[in-house]
Amino acid sequence: MPETYTKMSSKAGLAPGSLVHVGTKKAGNAKVTLIHYDRDSLEEREILSLDECLSSSAKAGVTWIDVEGIHQLDTVEKIGKLYDLHPLTLEDIVNSEHRPKMEDYGDYVFIVLKTLSYSARTGMLNSAQISMVFKPSLVISFQEAETDIFEPLRERLRKGKGRLSKQGSDYLAYALMDSIIDGYFLLLDELGERIETIQEELVGKPSKETLQRIFSIRHDMAQLRRFIWPLRDFTNLMLRGEIPLIQEQTRLYLRDLYDHTAHVVETIDTFRDTLSGMIDIYLSSISNKLNETMKVLTIIATIFIPLTFIAGVYGMNFENMPELKWPWGYAAVWLVMVGVAASMLTYFRRKNWI
Amino acid sequence: MPETYTKMSSKAGLAPGSLVHVGTKKAGNAKVTLIHYDRDSLEEREILSLDECLSSSAKAGVTWIDVEGIHQLDTVEKIGKLYDLHPLTLEDIVNSEHRPKMEDYGDYVFIVLKTLSYSARTGMLNSAQISMVFKPSLVISFQEAETDIFEPLRERLRKGKGRLSKQGSDYLAYALMDSIIDGYFLLLDELGERIETIQEELVGKPSKETLQRIFSIRHDMAQLRRFIWPLRDFTNLMLRGEIPLIQEQTRLYLRDLYDHTAHVVETIDTFRDTLSGMIDIYLSSISNKLNETMKVLTIIATIFIPLTFIAGVYGMNFENMPELKWPWGYAAVWLVMVGVAASMLTYFRRKNWI
Amino acid sequence: MPETYTKMSSKAGLAPGSLVHVGTKKAGNAKVTLIHYDRDSLEEREILSLDECLSSSAKAGVTWIDVEGIHQLDTVEKIGKLYDLHPLTLEDIVNSEHRPKMEDYGDYVFIVLKTLSYSARTGMLNSAQISMVFKPSLVISFQEAETDIFEPLRERLRKGKGRLSKQGSDYLAYALMDSIIDGYFLLLDELGERIETIQEELVGKPSKETLQRIFSIRHDMAQLRRFIWPLRDFTNLMLRGEIPLIQEQTRLYLRDLYDHTAHVVETIDTFRDTLSGMIDIYLSSISNKLNETMKVLTIIATIFIPLTFIAGVYGMNFENMPELKWPWGYAAVWLVMVGVAASMLTYFRRKNWI
Amino acid sequence: MPETYTKMSSKAGLAPGSLVHVGTKKAGNAKVTLIHYDRDSLEEREILSLDECLSSSAKAGVTWIDVEGIHQLDTVEKIGKLYDLHPLTLEDIVNSEHRPKMEDYGDYVFIVLKTLSYSARTGMLNSAQISMVFKPSLVISFQEAETDIFEPLRERLRKGKGRLSKQGSDYLAYALMDSIIDGYFLLLDELGERIETIQEELVGKPSKETLQRIFSIRHDMAQLRRFIWPLRDFTNLMLRGEIPLIQEQTRLYLRDLYDHTAHVVETIDTFRDTLSGMIDIYLSSISNKLNETMKVLTIIATIFIPLTFIAGVYGMNFENMPELKWPWGYAAVWLVMVGVAASMLTYFRRKNWI
Amino acid sequence: MPETYTKMSSKAGLAPGSLVHVGTKKAGNAKVTLIHYDRDSLEEREILSLDECLSSSAKAGVTWIDVEGIHQLDTVEKIGKLYDLHPLTLEDIVNSEHRPKMEDYGDYVFIVLKTLSYSARTGMLNSAQISMVFKPSLVISFQEAETDIFEPLRERLRKGKGRLSKQGSDYLAYALMDSIIDGYFLLLDELGERIETIQEELVGKPSKETLQRIFSIRHDMAQLRRFIWPLRDFTNLMLRGEIPLIQEQTRLYLRDLYDHTAHVVETIDTFRDTLSGMIDIYLSSISNKLNETMKVLTIIATIFIPLTFIAGVYGMNFENMPELKWPWGYAAVWLVMVGVAASMLTYFRRKNWI
Repeated sequence: MPETYTKMSSKAGLAPGSLVHVGTKKAGNAKVTLIHYDRDSLEEREILSLDECLSSSAKAGVTWIDVEGIHQLDTVEKIGKLYDLHPLTLEDIVNSEHRPKMEDYGDYVFIVLKTLSYSARTGMLNSAQISMVFKPSLVISFQEAETDIFEPLRERLRKGKGRLSKQGSDYLAYALMDSIIDGYFLLLDELGERIETIQEELVGKPSKETLQRIFSIRHDMAQLRRFIWPLRDFTNLMLRGEIPLIQEQTRLYLRDLYDHTAHVVETIDTFRDTLSGMIDIYLSSISNKLNETMKVLTIIATIFIPLTFIAGVYGMNFENMPELKWPWGYAAVWLVMVGVAASMLTYFRRKNWI
Repeated sequence: MPETYTKMSSKAGLAPGSLVHVGTKKAGNAKVTLIHYDRDSLEEREILSLDECLSSSAKAGVTWIDVEGIHQLDTVEKIGKLYDLHPLTLEDIVNSEHRPKMEDYGDYVFIVLKTLSYSARTGMLNSAQISMVFKPSLVISFQEAETDIFEPLRERLRKGKGRLSKQGSDYLAYALMDSIIDGYFLLLDELGERIETIQEELVGKPSKETLQRIFSIRHDMAQLRRFIWPLRDFTNLMLRGEIPLIQEQTRLYLRDLYDHTAHVVETIDTFRDTLSGMIDIYLSSISNKLNETMKVLTIIATIFIPLTFIAGVYGMNFENMPELKWPWGYAAVWLVMVGVAASMLTYFRRKNWI
Repeated sequence: MPETYTKMSSKAGLAPGSLVHVGTKKAGNAKVTLIHYDRDSLEEREILSLDECLSSSAKAGVTWIDVEGIHQLDTVEKIGKLYDLHPLTLEDIVNSEHRPKMEDYGDYVFIVLKTLSYSARTGMLNSAQISMVFKPSLVISFQEAETDIFEPLRERLRKGKGRLSKQGSDYLAYALMDSIIDGYFLLLDELGERIETIQEELVGKPSKETLQRIFSIRHDMAQLRRFIWPLRDFTNLMLRGEIPLIQEQTRLYLRDLYDHTAHVVETIDTFRDTLSGMIDIYLSSISNKLNETMKVLTIIATIFIPLTFIAGVYGMNFENMPELKWPWGYAAVWLVMVGVAASMLTYFRRKNWI
Repeated sequence: MPETYTKMSSKAGLAPGSLVHVGTKKAGNAKVTLIHYDRDSLEEREILSLDECLSSSAKAGVTWIDVEGIHQLDTVEKIGKLYDLHPLTLEDIVNSEHRPKMEDYGDYVFIVLKTLSYSARTGMLNSAQISMVFKPSLVISFQEAETDIFEPLRERLRKGKGRLSKQGSDYLAYALMDSIIDGYFLLLDELGERIETIQEELVGKPSKETLQRIFSIRHDMAQLRRFIWPLRDFTNLMLRGEIPLIQEQTRLYLRDLYDHTAHVVETIDTFRDTLSGMIDIYLSSISNKLNETMKVLTIIATIFIPLTFIAGVYGMNFENMPELKWPWGYAAVWLVMVGVAASMLTYFRRKNWI
Repeated sequence: MPETYTKMSSKAGLAPGSLVHVGTKKAGNAKVTLIHYDRDSLEEREILSLDECLSSSAKAGVTWIDVEGIHQLDTVEKIGKLYDLHPLTLEDIVNSEHRPKMEDYGDYVFIVLKTLSYSARTGMLNSAQISMVFKPSLVISFQEAETDIFEPLRERLRKGKGRLSKQGSDYLAYALMDSIIDGYFLLLDELGERIETIQEELVGKPSKETLQRIFSIRHDMAQLRRFIWPLRDFTNLMLRGEIPLIQEQTRLYLRDLYDHTAHVVETIDTFRDTLSGMIDIYLSSISNKLNETMKVLTIIATIFIPLTFIAGVYGMNFENMPELKWPWGYAAVWLVMVGVAASMLTYFRRKNWI
């Protein structure tokens, strides 16, 4: 495969701030798009030379630079130089194994987020990293891979209607974060459906794979939880007004965002609880099946083993066995055998086994 | 079915503050009732045009507007405009998948609550959302569905007696919250009875359904806990005096409310503990049953297999088997077999198996 | 039965502060006792008309009014009026399903506590509620049922010796609380003995009832823990000096009380741990028993099934079976069978099964 | 036995501050030793009359009074009077069922600690209580039983070298606490060895006793944890400078002490984790054994039951059974039987059962 | 073996601050290396007499003294005297059983860290202790054993490029800590691979060793967690500016370090979750296997036991058994037997057993 994966441990021994791309090596160039808007106008174009960015920064309004593809280190480095980003920020941007976080660098705020979705092809959970930097009147977003997650947002900008075009860069940053959380709700729907499918399987005909599927979902949910948890924490920090770059009127919206993260966490916890109940049901269904198997065996064996013994007795070849010569001996033996079987069956019926 | 359900994830990509009804689409119009009261008088009427509301707001006393049905977005929107509610408040009101919360918007306080009850028809747990907004001298409540949960309260108002008519809008808001928590106590009674039924089943004749019923109750309790927990938190916030719209004398009552939520949480935790003990008892009862089945099989098999062997030996057709010719051979074999069976039974008795 | 139980949920829909007795309806009247003491004298008498109380309140020293029986609402109501208690306090006093709590109403402190003991008759855990109100120089205690839990305290007062008679009402309140915690220690002893009995049962001959008894004790301990926990919390609050009615010199004693609650909590936690270990031992003992049963079956079956087969072979009626005509055929078959059995036994011995 | 045990619950109903010895009643008198030292000199003698103590208190330097045996209430009471100790302090000193704690009484600090060690005779965990009081220039320690735990400390004092003789009474108190924690490390070694022994047992030949031994160790560790935890808490309090009697230069040493308690807690937690893994391994080993037993039974039974059937068929006495008369009938039956057995064995081999 | 291990408990009874080496006694001398650097120059040499150190301390720039081997107490003692280190610091340096910690002694900061790696030889987890002291312009590091963990750092210093040579001693201390955390990432990779191997084993052919290997990995991870947790805590303390010796510009780098520790903790937690799922899968796979074994046994036994009985009946020797004389008796019996077997098979098929 042409794609290669660079691990985080490969950075061991390097100086902090060294730019090393951690993640899957993509082919192709990074794509940089610039959107500049204010109350009245919107300009959108693809950037080929990064020097073009500077011109629009001079104008009033908000500039949003969207970089798709973080494996091209020189692009990231140039942007870093252009907008005076700290080396540690750049290092984190190109490290796609990072956990969500927010860092206030004084003149800008740096946010790392993760998207999560089930791959249509493999059915596995895929995550992609999105990091963003915002200063007054500027937002730069870096996407690990090309996604259309921000497309509805761009559409709203293009239409120029709504709150978005009238607010500052902090509101745009909020809107980007909101888009990602919207994706989590879609994932929760998918998870909910998968859980329901397994639940039906459990009632019907559980198999060994059922348990593995339960654990696979639990694993996926744990990952979502791990991504949403820090997001929840730093959203809380932001809405409490501890980040000066966030304006007063944006905080109400961050409170809404916080609510959404709490909703996601709660749904995950409910799902978790359901799953752990399903594991118990699965395990007890194995024991129940064993019980049933054993009952069948026991019933058959305890009825026929004594009968076989009786038949064996009269199969013995002793010369002197008076019963064998009785005219009704054979019929009597049958009677005894039917009696034994009947009493056994009665016993089992009384024990509620049959 | 004419009822359709709109999911929370359907809002993905929309601008924050967009009014989208999340929940079951009800038929019929929203019903708006207005109650205006002060120490001496009470006025109660159904509102057809929302402009009627304004007239009573001008008078002294407390106005309570109760909206039943949140799926009619224009009604909610008009009320929002009339009383100057924030778009995010309106968005939350029409989203019936919201978790309980309280938000202080400065000039009003917004509270979201949930009612919970077992449906008489399906036996399933139903939740309905009730949100309320209160300002000085005004309370607006929004109910997802028509319920009679506030009827006792209205009755108390109509009778004009008691503390209710002499207090401000914050006390009315408290009284609404109290009504909902009263409903939780009824639910706890129902849960307690269901647990007792299962407990009797466990002692008597546990079946596969028993475990599923245990988990279903556990699931319901988890939902109640999820609804009461934030309520408990923000009641605490309110009674500590952090919400300026809550007056000093109402806080004592909120302390009482807080106590009730604590009582509910504690009862749930006790129930939870009981349920987890029941799961252990259920699982051990499966193992015990298996044990018993195996004992029956083992006793029968170990007694009769050796006997059958002995009978088999003397069923062999060797020409030279001296025992067969002994006159007392047959009787001797019976003696041996009875001896073997007796010693087996003694062994089992000593092992306490029979 | 003449005793009827009123549930907490029966209060749903009533105005807060409504006096409704929650608990078992007792027959008979409430009994009110008054003790008034100072450094030098003690007066003790039963009160028939509540107006008598007022006279002694005027005198210096501490007045202790003990009300036994809270189902007589008018008695509680009169006392409430006499000493100016808040309606919510009265509501809590007559609600015997309340959890332990302390509330500072400014001019008095209200405390709810629970006694816990095993009923000698039913062997079940019984709880009774004791609430108390204390102001400077006045303590009023309300007992759900007549108990002799405060008798040793009264005895100490009558003897006039010790610290008790020289201190204020806060020390008396402390002494009442201390009496109740003393009862918890007796309960812990009883629990400890029950656990030991079960432990012996586990080693000897565990039965299905063993597990149920373990869970019953666990349940009882959870209740004790639920009662001691809030007590511990508000004792801590009181000793830290946050309740102005508590005097400096009483706080040292409250620290002692706090220590006792911590001791109770710790002992419960140790017991809990022991119990959960006992559940594991019980469950593994079931599995061990199954293992043993199966070993017996397997040993007997694997020895005799092959032998029976051999006997079966020579029981066949083929005309041409040379072995049957050998003079030593029969003896040879016995030899083979003994050999097979011996090698099986050797195999089992090597597996450590016998 | 002459030793009797007094329980904590026996104090129920007594006034707080009553001196009641809780613990095992020892025979013999309490032994009081006095050590007085300063930079240059050391005086050590056994005290017969407590009045002797006062003389040395007048001198400069530090006085350490060590009381061995707390069951002699009058000795403790006299010391209490001599040094002005609060009745609650005295009550706690003679109550050997106390949990570790530190209390600041203003003019002195009171500390309760526990020693823990395995009895060489019974192999059970023994705990003894050591309480101490320190004021400027005075330390009084009370030991429940004679131990040699402070002997190394005394030796260091006698040699007069080291920091000990140059520091105040707070450093001596620290040194006493340090001695006790040193004992915990010895206990941890013993626990570690016991765990290793069980681990070997688990791999080799686990028995029912193995599980009980695991739980016994878990129980012992829980007790150690219960004793170290409050110690850790109040050491932290002391090192943070909240106890005025602790001097600045002693705090560094308390930080070291705190580290040691943290080390003990961590080691216990590691052990706990190991033990819970061992329980899982034990339980799965039971299941594995059952599995193996069942495999042996199944293999033997499924091979021989069909063969026995075949033999049974040709043991039937029908007059018209053509196979019986075939010359190669017998040989053919053997062939069939070998074929059946072989195919069964092949099946089991393919299933990896043999 | 010449290497001997000294335990922590061997220090019991010694005065605090006594220098006792705890850990494996290494042979050979301690090796002391000195690196002195400033913006422009770098000097590196091995130190034979410790007095050489003083000369370079006088110069501007940063001095880094690296001591490999802590078992030579006199070396550590001399350094302690030379740089005025507290006896408790020295005691901790030579105690290789210490847990990670940071202590601010005012004029210097003392840090204890642990390296962790799998030994290539034994496959076991090895830990080594690294402690460091830093003052303005001086860092002293003590390694328990010679490692090459700081080699990349030295290399960076020698090249003189990067941030390292331009910063103070606090940045060097940070860089040392960073090197150790880099090692943890390598360990995480190794752990991840081991978990994957076991996962494949679980799906394929789980054995008894599988469970033991799972617990061994869990144990190793717990150790890593125990080492990273305090590191995380004190890094947080350092970056919040509570340690005056840490300069403003270094704090950003500490924030990065903190992120890395959080990443490690999170990965461990994910692994833990995976492992606990694997234990459940393992246990259920045992039960499943038992189920399958029992099914085979039950199918064979319940088919052939009735057939054997039928054959047994017609093997009886009664004189008067009319069936035996029927010409088609034998064929009829075969028919009956085939019918019985077929109906059994149908039953099992309907139960989904075959």
